[in-house]
Amino acid sequence: MPSPVTDADLAFTAELGQQLRVDSVRSSTSAGSGHPTSSMSAADLLAVLVSRHLRYDWDNPGNPGNDHLIFSKGHASPLLYSVFKAVGAVSDEELMDGYRRFGSRLEGHPTPVLPWVDVATGSLGQGLPDGVGVALAGKYLDELPYRVWVLCGDSEMAEGSMWEAFDKASYYKLANLVAILDINRLGQRGPTELGWDIEAYRRRVTAFGARALVIDGHDVAAIDEALAEAGNLSGEQPTVILARTIKGRGFSEVEDREDWHGKPLPAEMAERAVTELGGERHLVVRGPVPDEARPRRQVNGQAEVKLPAYDRGQRVATRKAYGDALAALGARSDVVALDGEVSNSTYAAEFAKAYPERYFEMFIAEQQLVAAAVGLQVRGYRPFASTFAAFFTRAYDFIRMAAISQASICLSGSHAGAEIGADGPSQMALEDLAMMRAVHGSTVLYPSDGTSAAALVAAMADLEGISYLRTTRGGYPVLYDADESFPVGGSKVLRSSGEDQVTLIGAGITLHHCLAAADQLAGDGISARVIDLYSVKPVDTATLSAAAEATGGRLVVAEDHHPEGGLGSAVLDALTGAGHAELSVAHLAVREMPGSGSTPELLDAAGIDAAHIAEAARRLLA
Amino acid sequence: MPSPVTDADLAFTAELGQQLRVDSVRSSTSAGSGHPTSSMSAADLLAVLVSRHLRYDWDNPGNPGNDHLIFSKGHASPLLYSVFKAVGAVSDEELMDGYRRFGSRLEGHPTPVLPWVDVATGSLGQGLPDGVGVALAGKYLDELPYRVWVLCGDSEMAEGSMWEAFDKASYYKLANLVAILDINRLGQRGPTELGWDIEAYRRRVTAFGARALVIDGHDVAAIDEALAEAGNLSGEQPTVILARTIKGRGFSEVEDREDWHGKPLPAEMAERAVTELGGERHLVVRGPVPDEARPRRQVNGQAEVKLPAYDRGQRVATRKAYGDALAALGARSDVVALDGEVSNSTYAAEFAKAYPERYFEMFIAEQQLVAAAVGLQVRGYRPFASTFAAFFTRAYDFIRMAAISQASICLSGSHAGAEIGADGPSQMALEDLAMMRAVHGSTVLYPSDGTSAAALVAAMADLEGISYLRTTRGGYPVLYDADESFPVGGSKVLRSSGEDQVTLIGAGITLHHCLAAADQLAGDGISARVIDLYSVKPVDTATLSAAAEATGGRLVVAEDHHPEGGLGSAVLDALTGAGHAELSVAHLAVREMPGSGSTPELLDAAGIDAAHIAEAARRLLA
Repeated sequence: MPSPVTDADLAFTAELGQQLRVDSVRSSTSAGSGHPTSSMSAADLLAVLVSRHLRYDWDNPGNPGNDHLIFSKGHASPLLYSVFKAVGAVSDEELMDGYRRFGSRLEGHPTPVLPWVDVATGSLGQGLPDGVGVALAGKYLDELPYRVWVLCGDSEMAEGSMWEAFDKASYYKLANLVAILDINRLGQRGPTELGWDIEAYRRRVTAFGARALVIDGHDVAAIDEALAEAGNLSGEQPTVILARTIKGRGFSEVEDREDWHGKPLPAEMAERAVTELGGERHLVVRGPVPDEARPRRQVNGQAEVKLPAYDRGQRVATRKAYGDALAALGARSDVVALDGEVSNSTYAAEFAKAYPERYFEMFIAEQQLVAAAVGLQVRGYRPFASTFAAFFTRAYDFIRMAAISQASICLSGSHAGAEIGADGPSQMALEDLAMMRAVHGSTVLYPSDGTSAAALVAAMADLEGISYLRTTRGGYPVLYDADESFPVGGSKVLRSSGEDQVTLIGAGITLHHCLAAADQLAGDGISARVIDLYSVKPVDTATLSAAAEATGGRLVVAEDHHPEGGLGSAVLDALTGAGHAELSVAHLAVREMPGSGSTPELLDAAGIDAAHIAEAARRLLA
Repeated sequence: MPSPVTDADLAFTAELGQQLRVDSVRSSTSAGSGHPTSSMSAADLLAVLVSRHLRYDWDNPGNPGNDHLIFSKGHASPLLYSVFKAVGAVSDEELMDGYRRFGSRLEGHPTPVLPWVDVATGSLGQGLPDGVGVALAGKYLDELPYRVWVLCGDSEMAEGSMWEAFDKASYYKLANLVAILDINRLGQRGPTELGWDIEAYRRRVTAFGARALVIDGHDVAAIDEALAEAGNLSGEQPTVILARTIKGRGFSEVEDREDWHGKPLPAEMAERAVTELGGERHLVVRGPVPDEARPRRQVNGQAEVKLPAYDRGQRVATRKAYGDALAALGARSDVVALDGEVSNSTYAAEFAKAYPERYFEMFIAEQQLVAAAVGLQVRGYRPFASTFAAFFTRAYDFIRMAAISQASICLSGSHAGAEIGADGPSQMALEDLAMMRAVHGSTVLYPSDGTSAAALVAAMADLEGISYLRTTRGGYPVLYDADESFPVGGSKVLRSSGEDQVTLIGAGITLHHCLAAADQLAGDGISARVIDLYSVKPVDTATLSAAAEATGGRLVVAEDHHPEGGLGSAVLDALTGAGHAELSVAHLAVREMPGSGSTPELLDAAGIDAAHIAEAARRLLA
């Protein structure tokens, strides 16, 4: 518990709040952009938090006992960086000369290029869901008494993802999560929906299972009391501090004014602001530090993993192989799994059965599913999150931001493409390869059989960045021996001879159809090379180039995906970069909107089955 | 108001409920897939709704006075189609032989291939947000007394988008919106988070501003009373009927059982179910029809539109041209606009000022933003929805589903790419072209100047399907005369001669850098063709092909986007399909994660500015 507050403490935090305001004004004016007024409303909240409640060893951001501080309202970066100055982590020079400048780590919105920042924010409604993931780790995995403090804006309460976060925080009884809501009533273009209707916020957050503490966000004594109560881990509810604040607080020319969002003060105005705020200060604050007596529970990422072994020819769905391999990976105690209420379809259930203590059911909340994974990896875990591939589209903003967060997370999307059959297009992922390939630094994998799927799941556990596995609904024959290796960035040539006239390229369901097409073509005396392009990004340019060379540039690429941005694009990008001679590419993809039907009917209708692949090959040779 | 209910009415609706159950069982068993138990829980709710409350002219689904019925829980399609049979819209044969079959309109999840279906559902948490859009049209635009009835599942209450919908429904006082929540306590893989804790649901929906009516969802008298009250438009709140129901209701072998989600009953079990439910029935029901006395307010999509005219060389941001053109398009009374609380950045504010009665502020809720657009177009309006391009990633699942809904909506994403500068990567759209190109039937436009931006906004207003405009933050010189035309699927050749040695292809900010690069190259005696690829999808294959032919296959493509799925892909896809001779393509794109900085610094760092374009061209010629 924090020590009883004294008048001197209160006077100091009030001064510190003014310093944070002054520095928010100075840094943004110096940069010529930024959000000073959104920082000023929350300055007192942060002053009290960092000086008296946040347990943080600023000399060692890696201290496992540190509390976590997340700015869900990432545009208040001037405030966050001013806090970093106040604790001595960043110099005044860096703040003034670096903020928002090219090459500086003090970016316009916080990112983990800074050692004290866990996750990138700036797309609103993400910091709190990320914080849920960190808090899950704290309560259920680390079993350490750190708290997760998340500064939220009132505008972002309009994002559904915030309510996914409150819902999961209460479901999982995350007393270690504290949302500090800076209710300054003004958004970018005008008043928020709820303005200063604090009661409306209170009703909503309590209905979602949180404990609400309502305060004047500029009364340092009230803030201190609320933070002390919020930081107490004895309860079973997350806490929301509903702080009524004033945007631009402390500078009368901008206080509570509509037209001052996201604008630095012009230099002469900034000067008046600093004067009104009492001038520059250079207070240094050192708040409480974590109790060193509680070391982190060790997790082991090195355990021996015995992957499932399938027999060649056995029919195994790649989604089932995902579940089997994930359960095997559970031998590594850093591996955790999450799913969006479809674990019996994605086969994440195999892991949940084997390691229930490391499985988190996120129900049908895909944004929170991905955000929780991001939060868990902040604490050093290796999360595997799964749902239908189509439904990862729901979380694209979170996936994009996870890349900016430098997060290493593994995503598995099942039920890819028209292959799924009768359920119809709403359940068919036909955009996921395009979406996932465009994520910075991502790895995109698309196995065709159980053996390669299992091997790739194991590989994902050690990849940096966002990795994505696309799995198929139906069971198809195992193509490889259990000891075959599948390096990321590789491919497999399943058929080849010195006489190859055309190359057939597929992955997932279409690889099986490429093989059948090669058989049909062989009956016509046409020798076809067949490539299993299981690694869509990075892609095996060398093997593709060699095949293009060997087969006169004649390639058939077949994919169960819309024509843009998927397998075909990966092949063209690779070969174009390689500076090739003439290519004749037949690109078979799902070009019309599918309906319901059987798998063979839908693959035929899309023109991506064996008959169409063979026919395309024949046309290239005609 | 519906007539007072009689015992005969109640007996009929109870019988009808049984028929809907029987037909849900029969159709799904016949199809070999589907969700009978999820249909059976809601059968009584639908029986009372269609027989006594839903005002619908089944012979004329286009009747403007019709109520709307949306199955947000789209997997209950057996129930919906059984309702269509009961009202005589679909025959028993079609239901039995068509459901989920190839080529049938009775798809696994409802889509608007059926005339009585407004929007595709099946990705949970979308039907209610779509319904908000329809209800907005009813209350504020059509001013007709139709109601929007949305059947929701309890599992989908975990989706944040549902809370975005409740929030907006109460903000906009949509008394014409009724959510019927089928609380059968079981999801796909087990119990829902809240089970039968009806009070928890009540607290949440009332906290979000809805009126809650709690009933036993199998008590037809209680249902009738609640629907009568809900359908009354006199209030100012949306209504949520919280119906406690039993999954699989009516067949003792599956009632309230965990392992029966999404499974048809085997034939012999189905036989027992039909027997227990009292056998097959073929009741035909005709409920109330809308009051013909209230014709639809006419909207005019043909008005003369005077687009803004800019002078060549004038610096105009394409986002500003979007706002100007949109305001001009407001002369058409079918055009409506929505924005996600950034209208002063996207310039949707120009429309809001001119036509406040046709502008809907959706605050920071991008999923609801897109869903509202989908709902508004159900009623024949032409919605333009805008936010930062980066934040449309938040709504990708809604955009994907909008395509399945056959919706015609116009999206405008501002602040594309690293060009935005100091705000940093969270605000930079670097995946949006990939994402939007992969949407079925989409149009993707990326103007470089004010004139083309304005012309393309006007063109979007008449396009079918999902159209997307990518706009840029900064102001750059107008390149075209105001009377220039910009057909969708076209491009502009800005520099060309008979001596061209290399082609430079850009759009948006990079086009300006292509022009500057061409000037630099001219200084070296190198003649470069420059193409403005403002139409990214469809793309102008003929012009690209001609340029490739004319310049020896040497192309430099520069884009302010990650390398996957954007401009470069569009060019390669076009030229590969065209069966070209050797291509030497230099593809300049944003390959590293940008930070903050000035626009020139960031474009230089990404290697997509004039100097890099010129250098790439020189290398191709070396």
